[in-house]
Amino acid sequence: MKEKIKIVKIGGNIIEDKLLLETFLKDFTNLKSPKILVHGGGKSATKLAGKLNLKPTLYKGRRITDKDNLDVAIMVYAGLINKNIVAQLQANACQSIGLSGADANVILAAKRPVKKVDFGFVGDIVNVNAKNIKLLLDNNITPVFCALSHNNQGQLLNTNADTIASEIAIALSDFYKVELNYIFELKGVLKDIDNKESVITKINLKDYEKLLDVSKISEGMLPKLHNCFRALEKGVYQVKIGDASLVSPAESLHTALSLK
Amino acid sequence: MKEKIKIVKIGGNIIEDKLLLETFLKDFTNLKSPKILVHGGGKSATKLAGKLNLKPTLYKGRRITDKDNLDVAIMVYAGLINKNIVAQLQANACQSIGLSGADANVILAAKRPVKKVDFGFVGDIVNVNAKNIKLLLDNNITPVFCALSHNNQGQLLNTNADTIASEIAIALSDFYKVELNYIFELKGVLKDIDNKESVITKINLKDYEKLLDVSKISEGMLPKLHNCFRALEKGVYQVKIGDASLVSPAESLHTALSLK
Repeated sequence: MKEKIKIVKIGGNIIEDKLLLETFLKDFTNLKSPKILVHGGGKSATKLAGKLNLKPTLYKGRRITDKDNLDVAIMVYAGLINKNIVAQLQANACQSIGLSGADANVILAAKRPVKKVDFGFVGDIVNVNAKNIKLLLDNNITPVFCALSHNNQGQLLNTNADTIASEIAIALSDFYKVELNYIFELKGVLKDIDNKESVITKINLKDYEKLLDVSKISEGMLPKLHNCFRALEKGVYQVKIGDASLVSPAESLHTALSLK
Repeated sequence: MKEKIKIVKIGGNIIEDKLLLETFLKDFTNLKSPKILVHGGGKSATKLAGKLNLKPTLYKGRRITDKDNLDVAIMVYAGLINKNIVAQLQANACQSIGLSGADANVILAAKRPVKKVDFGFVGDIVNVNAKNIKLLLDNNITPVFCALSHNNQGQLLNTNADTIASEIAIALSDFYKVELNYIFELKGVLKDIDNKESVITKINLKDYEKLLDVSKISEGMLPKLHNCFRALEKGVYQVKIGDASLVSPAESLHTALSLK
């Protein structure tokens, strides 16, 4: 039987809240090994870009990553956020190592092809090096991923953290029974967007297709759910969406996703 | 007999020169494994601090690292410089991984004690985790260190890159026959500071003490030489000081340091 692993993705709401991050990292530390953390960038990159007078270029609400904004992403994601998380995990005696996709060649990507829009230095994942990630895990080192990949030609690329988490989960499914947790500001996928307690506790593929049909899901949630079901279809054992209490010892309200 | 390892430290003059860095990284890639790279920060951190309107606080010419300047150091050293170097090494097919001292707990430090001056978030190295560095080397992964350590209580600390290089060299001497290379803008230690070709090709401990006596060494060179001789006394096999040609295949003019 395959060993269990938990892959936990956190976003801006935790990263930017000192206390919440501290509590989360303690709970994460207490998870049984092996485990992996993936973090997004939150608003810190936008803040730094603002201080540097860089103007965000948007196309239909989606950010375009030019050279200056890529540099900001590298500094904030791989530098400030990643290294501070690792330092805090070390303080918890959680042996960990921070990784961009270039480190140990763990996430290879290709610059997103230019169709109508050139999204700039944005990478679509081509390969996850499960062997090198497993090498760390086998030595009781917890990998901490930021949202950057590389193209193996010297170029770092901005890459969606949700997608990084799901692609790692898929790649590790060959070796582990993978549970993927997406942690964000809500307790799960909501039936009624105005009622934060209206969590749909279970969604299978059929439910998901129905929800899509009736456009019941908020736009921000759509790519998240897409990632989740892709992961399940590619061999990930379990996917959960919820708030930080997902990793706390107490049973928490959340959305569990499954194929059937 | 112990296996050989080369530990190469580069500074700002290479990091800030795109072409020089590219050539250096190719030569570094071509060095036989195992090898380690340590890089300083150069002027990029000062530049970013300037753009963010942070004023450098200096005490007798030495920088004091306050919280904002530490953040800049983390962003530039562990983020921008470190990740771009790793991405370029990957492009050269040099399997590498970027590390701050917090990653895999490789460099533990203590905040410099406050005597006359509080240097701020500056760390004096307490321990180098040779075991975890060796784990990477044994798996043909080249570690790339930036100039940051941590105190195991969640705090990252700014740490001199020359010292990081020499302390790693010392710690690895238990397992390897270590050659430590300090690469900077000159061909070596100069007899006459106005003549860049006046390289002293060999300096032993006695020569060094004589040079100190007659104050023949430039002030910038003093801590470098101190690091070198400390490393030799603590078991490092060989130390060389020179320019980037130190790692090129051609025999180059440089300063070789030895105890006797």
